[in-house]
Amino acid sequence: MIKVGIIGVGTVGQSVANILEKNKALIGARAGKEISVVKGVVSNINKKRDVSIPLSDNVDDILDDDSIDIVVELMGGVDEPYKIVQKALSNGKAVVTANKALLAYHRYDLQKIAQDIPIGYEASVAGGIPIINALKVGLSANQITAIKGIMNGTCNYMLTKMMQEGVRYEDILQEAQDLGYAEADPTFDVGGFDAAHKLLILASIAYGIDAKPEDILIEGIENIGQDDIAFAKEFNYSIKLLAIAKKINTKIELRVHPVLIRNDQMIAKIDGVMNGVSVIGDCVGETLYYGPGAGGDATASAVIADIIEIVRAGQSSPMLGFKRPFQSENLILMPKEEIESEYYLRMLVDDAPGVLASIAQILGKHNISIETFLQRPSDNNKKATLLCATHECQEKYIIAAIKEIESLQSVNAKIVMIRIES
Amino acid sequence: MIKVGIIGVGTVGQSVANILEKNKALIGARAGKEISVVKGVVSNINKKRDVSIPLSDNVDDILDDDSIDIVVELMGGVDEPYKIVQKALSNGKAVVTANKALLAYHRYDLQKIAQDIPIGYEASVAGGIPIINALKVGLSANQITAIKGIMNGTCNYMLTKMMQEGVRYEDILQEAQDLGYAEADPTFDVGGFDAAHKLLILASIAYGIDAKPEDILIEGIENIGQDDIAFAKEFNYSIKLLAIAKKINTKIELRVHPVLIRNDQMIAKIDGVMNGVSVIGDCVGETLYYGPGAGGDATASAVIADIIEIVRAGQSSPMLGFKRPFQSENLILMPKEEIESEYYLRMLVDDAPGVLASIAQILGKHNISIETFLQRPSDNNKKATLLCATHECQEKYIIAAIKEIESLQSVNAKIVMIRIES
Repeated sequence: MIKVGIIGVGTVGQSVANILEKNKALIGARAGKEISVVKGVVSNINKKRDVSIPLSDNVDDILDDDSIDIVVELMGGVDEPYKIVQKALSNGKAVVTANKALLAYHRYDLQKIAQDIPIGYEASVAGGIPIINALKVGLSANQITAIKGIMNGTCNYMLTKMMQEGVRYEDILQEAQDLGYAEADPTFDVGGFDAAHKLLILASIAYGIDAKPEDILIEGIENIGQDDIAFAKEFNYSIKLLAIAKKINTKIELRVHPVLIRNDQMIAKIDGVMNGVSVIGDCVGETLYYGPGAGGDATASAVIADIIEIVRAGQSSPMLGFKRPFQSENLILMPKEEIESEYYLRMLVDDAPGVLASIAQILGKHNISIETFLQRPSDNNKKATLLCATHECQEKYIIAAIKEIESLQSVNAKIVMIRIES
Repeated sequence: MIKVGIIGVGTVGQSVANILEKNKALIGARAGKEISVVKGVVSNINKKRDVSIPLSDNVDDILDDDSIDIVVELMGGVDEPYKIVQKALSNGKAVVTANKALLAYHRYDLQKIAQDIPIGYEASVAGGIPIINALKVGLSANQITAIKGIMNGTCNYMLTKMMQEGVRYEDILQEAQDLGYAEADPTFDVGGFDAAHKLLILASIAYGIDAKPEDILIEGIENIGQDDIAFAKEFNYSIKLLAIAKKINTKIELRVHPVLIRNDQMIAKIDGVMNGVSVIGDCVGETLYYGPGAGGDATASAVIADIIEIVRAGQSSPMLGFKRPFQSENLILMPKEEIESEYYLRMLVDDAPGVLASIAQILGKHNISIETFLQRPSDNNKKATLLCATHECQEKYIIAAIKEIESLQSVNAKIVMIRIES
């Protein structure tokens, strides 16, 4: 019998324990051995929980128990779980974690300690969607050309409501908080950091890139306004928060930000709290993986898949860990300023002669050519809103141009820039 | 070095050989060993092919070559590949096949011969989408509740064009044939048989069901007309050819037929030649897998993933073969007449008093209650088209009711019935 200890018995932990019990015969048959949760560790031992396993508030009751084979880490946070997972691995226990923040910072440190001890982390990216499995096994014939993921359900829920029902950002944020989709401090979700953590994990699998969140371009959805939604609708775009990895020769672009994306793209059709990851492989072309990105039972499905894989295949499984047997070349992170994209700009300007000309001139000076230009009357009749979509250019040029345009007397507010993903 | 022989070097076979060459370093790193295609067997040795491997027209050049480890079978057909795969397995060679027809009939026979020799068949279902991998590994914590697949690109292309552009069935069939999407005899695709073969393979994985195509409900898209498309549009449905497996207690429903399905369902959004498979698991809920269902390179991606898995994990891989370690209960095929669905009926009737009453009475007699009823004027002013959607009932009752309605003097043509998938 394989013995499992769960550290952190919240929503997901309770689901893991209960599903391992409910589907015991099935899971045992698939793993080839019986699997039992023998202990749970919680911070508040007095809180009532919906599980029948023995609970403790001392993490060493699991870490120092030689009979426990697999530690499931579901605490959240970075520093404390980092210490705990290090100790579990040092004690020879396999680890399964759903903790994307931990892995965004310490995946290679942990792999170094783990050596041949399996680390499972299917649940850390896109909840119940078996995307790690697809990347590592299902698409193993492919050089991965690009990954584009909707991996934060809160943002996707908010953007969907803004697009479909015309709700304003502030109002839908409040609603998402009331529904429990967004935290009291929503920065982690709406600022793009949660999606970035997941992107870094996928980028490690596809490209062996050892980047940290602060190394990559991360922008949130906080500045999306009604004018942007109207522009998107008019030109058949959706607005989505995408996490993007792209291989350009030997450089890897990694970025998280809102995009305007054509409605006929499959990933643009993923609405509400659901997640989806589109993967482009050099042989297969585009495949896309869709499902629930959060929730106790859905996340537990991925945690348990890893437990089964560890029992069945152990260290020989290609699904586990962050070793890098997958590259045939050394890939490096592309500097943010070299990233190329098309851009959409929204500018609030004085409704006066010459303004448009001076803006167009600045764009031209930075070698940025315009694809679409729209001027809308503003509420204030002395102001005008200019909406502009550019052809492809490097990030550094658009940033320089935006800075220069913003310095014009006739430009009245910070320019909103949204990248266009084609 | 692992040596591979390919039997059938057509579009897919050429892609397999060429990708194994192009991505050699990457694939070797992932498999842990170098993989080389050393021989190909073709029926017409004089035909020019885009590969650099030695070709032969004698299948025994591969089957009797002791140095060859893995045989890739890409011939198509049933009887001849069945003999060849049997011999390959008997000679101790692992087999990778994309041949759904072979597996629809002989998967358990082949597994019996194979014993512990791996058989890979990721490519046999939905081309480049790693759906076998998802079912066997990614979703291993789940009891599979249902599978709903768009697994025939020809049908999906035709139905998409009929919905989006109002093209008639006959015209779009001609176009699909001109584009090479449909064969001169399109029955295998449009009749639902190709999708049924794939469904039987998925049902073996999810449920261990040993059914053959003739055991299950298979209907094609040949009778879908303009009125049905108009009804679908009016009530926010799409029309799709779905292959459906559902677990109802210990019985498994297996069926392939066109459905009316709500536009907001993710699988309804899969358009054109693309494939998609929605899987409902008891823990994870719905996950969906989307991608190219055909094409040389896409199918080769799946073939090579199996080759890598065989090299890496061999007989210990859960991804390979049709052993049945996955059930905790014995499941049986549900008889067709017990399947429950909602139904849509299209009837051409005399535009005369009493006709509607007699139809409604027959439906009532069979305990079928009506959900929506529409009467449209017909081109012929003595005729009327009646469109009707029912609440859920068993297949046997709707069939009996249809038969009785068709026997009415006032009913002028065969009734078209489409199941509604909710």
